[in-house]
Formats: sequence, structure tokens, C-alpha cells
Amino acid sequence: MEAYGRHVLLEMWDCNREILEDAEKITQIMCDAAGDAGATVVKSIHHEFNPPGITAVAILSESHISVHTWPIEGYVAVDIFTCGTVADPQLAIKGLLEAFGPKDHTSVEIKRGSPYKKETMLSKVYSET
Amino acid sequence: MEAYGRHVLLEMWDCNREILEDAEKITQIMCDAAGDAGATVVKSIHHEFNPPGITAVAILSESHISVHTWPIEGYVAVDIFTCGTVADPQLAIKGLLEAFGPKDHTSVEIKRGSPYKKETMLSKVYSET
Repeated sequence: MEAYGRHVLLEMWDCNREILEDAEKITQIMCDAAGDAGATVVKSIHHEFNPPGITAVAILSESHISVHTWPIEGYVAVDIFTCGTVADPQLAIKGLLEAFGPKDHTSVEIKRGSPYKKETMLSKVYSET
Repeated sequence: MEAYGRHVLLEMWDCNREILEDAEKITQIMCDAAGDAGATVVKSIHHEFNPPGITAVAILSESHISVHTWPIEGYVAVDIFTCGTVADPQLAIKGLLEAFGPKDHTSVEIKRGSPYKKETMLSKVYSET
């Protein structure tokens, strides 16, 4: 038996700043990323903050995805949590990197609901530029 | 300079099954947890799945919180991501454990947006019963 889900946290620095205040664009990138992962968006919400920053989150049939932007700093934080065996959150990363164009990024994948319970939740750490 | 945010992932097994299909209750527990962390809920959404399971997510002024329930298995996955120096996502855990009454739980805290970029994102792992 596998864990119930996989949770990928993606960090992106020095992104394309011009899109980080565009809520419609951020929501579209988020929904495209869910699709790339093989997941289905059930519903989504977003909010524009001041000082500037966008938060967008979506409920997926497979769990959730979120995007938070820091336009001044050029930093974007994404998390994508998918359960089941069809969706693969790693498949969302390529499109997110293309959309945000970070100079640096790092991601980590956490097992959720492992049947071994006390097993470490950390399964993979990626650190790439 | 500190990291921009702290992201806590909480795993709970063998929870009180009778509340895991109650969307209103799950949303209330989630919003209470955000408050315990010193965070402010901006807006929230939820969805009831079949086979049973609730997903609730909220945008916070400080980032987001999500709760996913597996009523048949008795498992609940929570994540709470807070940025800034006021909210503390660890303060949400006590109330979540009281509300869901798991027999086992584990949590992990991930640094988000560390100024050291390539520094490991994993800052603390908790494993408690």
C-alpha cells in the first residue's frame, strides 16, 4: 500500500515580476499546473493583497494547489497536493517554471498519509537551478 | 533576515470519524485553527466528495490553510502556511488535535522563501503520539 498522497512544495526566486500582480494570470497558471499534474480543479478562489501579492488556491478532485506571489521580491511559493495514483504533482513543475521563469528554484516532496505513519514524511528533496 | 514563511504539514490518524463528513464542522475547525495561529481568514471554500471526504481551504492574510479528511480511513491531512512574524503555524496544532482526536499524529515544518535559497527547506520534524 502506498501513501494516500504526495505533496510538492516549490520555491521560485527571481521570477518574471510583471505577472506576479496579475490575479487572472496567476489563477490561469495554477489551473494549468493542476492539469499538467493530471488533476482536476473543482473550484478556486484568489485574493489580491496590498502591499502587492496574489494568493490563489484551488480545491482539486485530488486535494489542492496554491500559489502565493511576492511581486517586489520576485518570489513565488507553490504547493500541490495530490492523492490517488493517477495525478503526479511532479508533472506540474515544468510548466510552472516556464510560466514564472525563476532564476532559481527548489522543491521538496512530502508523503502524506503513509501507511507506516511514523515513517519520515520526506521522500524526495530536489534542489536545482 | 528570516524566511518569508513557515509551512506546517500535520498528519492525523485514527481521528473521530463522526465529524470527518461534516463540512460545516470541518470549516469551523479550520478557521479556529487559523485563529489559534494568530492568522486571519480572508475567504474559504469547501467541497464534499463521494466516496466521502471533505476538502476545505482558506486564504489567510498570512498565506493559506487546508484540511482534507478521509472518513473511512479516519485520516486527516492539514497544512498551514503563514508568512510574516506575527502568526505561528505551530500554535494551530493543539486545537486541531483536540478537535480531531487522533490516536497518532506527525507534523513537519518547512521554511518557505529562505533568503539562503538553497538551504534545506526542512527546519523541524516532529513525530509524536
